[in-house]
Amino acid sequence: MAAPIDFYFDFSSPYGYLASHKIDALAAKHGREAQWRPYLLGAVMKVTGQQPLPSIPLKGDYAKRDFLRSARFHGVPYRHPTSFPIASVAPTRAFYWLNAKDPRRAKELARALYAAYFLEDVDTSQAENTIAVAAKLGLPADEVRAGIGDQAVKDLTKAEVDKAIALGAFGSPYIVVDGEPFWGIDRFDQLERWLSSGGF
Amino acid sequence: MAAPIDFYFDFSSPYGYLASHKIDALAAKHGREAQWRPYLLGAVMKVTGQQPLPSIPLKGDYAKRDFLRSARFHGVPYRHPTSFPIASVAPTRAFYWLNAKDPRRAKELARALYAAYFLEDVDTSQAENTIAVAAKLGLPADEVRAGIGDQAVKDLTKAEVDKAIALGAFGSPYIVVDGEPFWGIDRFDQLERWLSSGGF
Repeated sequence: MAAPIDFYFDFSSPYGYLASHKIDALAAKHGREAQWRPYLLGAVMKVTGQQPLPSIPLKGDYAKRDFLRSARFHGVPYRHPTSFPIASVAPTRAFYWLNAKDPRRAKELARALYAAYFLEDVDTSQAENTIAVAAKLGLPADEVRAGIGDQAVKDLTKAEVDKAIALGAFGSPYIVVDGEPFWGIDRFDQLERWLSSGGF
Repeated sequence: MAAPIDFYFDFSSPYGYLASHKIDALAAKHGREAQWRPYLLGAVMKVTGQQPLPSIPLKGDYAKRDFLRSARFHGVPYRHPTSFPIASVAPTRAFYWLNAKDPRRAKELARALYAAYFLEDVDTSQAENTIAVAAKLGLPADEVRAGIGDQAVKDLTKAEVDKAIALGAFGSPYIVVDGEPFWGIDRFDQLERWLSSGGF
């Protein structure tokens, strides 16, 4: 099997959420596996100096419309969250806590966290909400709570975020195939051609 | 014939240049005409507070790679200009000067100005370079020079830019179909579906 592709995303990102519905099938179609690597756009913005989309004049209004239209276009159910964007530290830590033990379940948790935020309007920036989402998957709340609060998990999360930024990731989704980066679900057409042809 | 679609772009924009190779055929396919409306991203950035792509950490490096790869993907010849981005006031004024007299030739001039900048590395921010591009199309240099310097043309250009921003345009290409905005050549898939179905 060819090398896995890396799928960087933020748990507060609408386009990352849309991509999460597509990336595994796309990878599998080309004999690859997608490694899910949540990170924090808040940390990215400290480097790039950029602002969250909703706070940018003109672009913010467009973005809201584009989230909804892009979801319809890609056939993915979407409900724009009441609180948006949110800090994604708690879900990201929960992911890496679980990922160290069971990557397959960590991916399930990531899907559940995305669904909670973008379908059920659950504010996963609140650690207790993230813990409740995990509990529905059968993960004991006490263990998740301890995991999120564990210094080793905090350090691991920070290391993953730093590593992503060091390799150039700045958006969500941000996908890397054999060193070639693709930013946005609107680069999935180029990504697909790249996977088919090994470059163009 | 259905209402024309509006094609907003900046003469310094790589994605606007790529879109300029596609927009007329796409419009025609759906029984529409594309009205070309150059405007100034420099003026937009005063409203949005954003910076030109190359000056944004991480995103700037990616953007350069994406310009080249997107050009290959869309099959459009592209040579990244030595001086980038540039102020696009001179080519935009030349366009509106000619557009008031002959919209068809104004579109030809726009194509020639894009080709000069993105194929031949001609810095069209220099008024004399814009005038030289126009002269190759048979437009007398003296007339173009007078047109660019004409206060009425300056006012018309400013009015067009203000109008674009007032309706929400903030990027290049930015296309409006029956009131629905599409930002980016990477929204041409959605644009095409919208044109086919009248919305989705």
